[in-house]
Amino acid sequence: MTEIKEPMDALIQELKRGTLVLGVLSQLKEPLYGYTLVNSLSEKGMDIDKNTLYPLLRRLEKQELLESEWNVEESRPRRYYKLSNKGIEVLSDLAKEWEKLNKTVIRLLEG
Amino acid sequence: MTEIKEPMDALIQELKRGTLVLGVLSQLKEPLYGYTLVNSLSEKGMDIDKNTLYPLLRRLEKQELLESEWNVEESRPRRYYKLSNKGIEVLSDLAKEWEKLNKTVIRLLEG
Repeated sequence: MTEIKEPMDALIQELKRGTLVLGVLSQLKEPLYGYTLVNSLSEKGMDIDKNTLYPLLRRLEKQELLESEWNVEESRPRRYYKLSNKGIEVLSDLAKEWEKLNKTVIRLLEG
Repeated sequence: MTEIKEPMDALIQELKRGTLVLGVLSQLKEPLYGYTLVNSLSEKGMDIDKNTLYPLLRRLEKQELLESEWNVEESRPRRYYKLSNKGIEVLSDLAKEWEKLNKTVIRLLEG
């Protein structure tokens, strides 16, 4: 149905957009750098563009949900990100919110 | 934790925003007007502001996912909205997308 493709794509994007922060935070209990984070998300079914990811990482660091540091011990210096204590707390709260939201959606779809 | 309240509120809003269209479409298998739609959503746990709802209904009608008509038989004329055939299809697709997204989020939260 190409006829419905365009609004559908936008609506699916809208659904997914809200889960990006939850996704990113969920993978940073251990420090990861951009490339390994993209892979870790992708393995679980969440695709994120690098042009979306890097500004998001910087925003989350500014909000003090993430901490980062350069690792210069490898052949190429890389910036590793991990959850701050505040980030751990926010992730846990978002996970609970997701559960509530999923229950709401299920109720809505039931009628 | 008032310290984390502000980003948290924004993040929760972001999570919920994507589900509004799904919520609205899900309640319009039978024709409803604004006030009864707000109540129907609210009963299932989805709160939506009228200033958000009315522009959304107009947008969804423009996208041909909803049809509307004035009912002038009651004491006060009211605009009733219901799903179009295209809307029925989009709702069904969005429901499937939600299920996939929920599985992705569960996988992400597992580690």
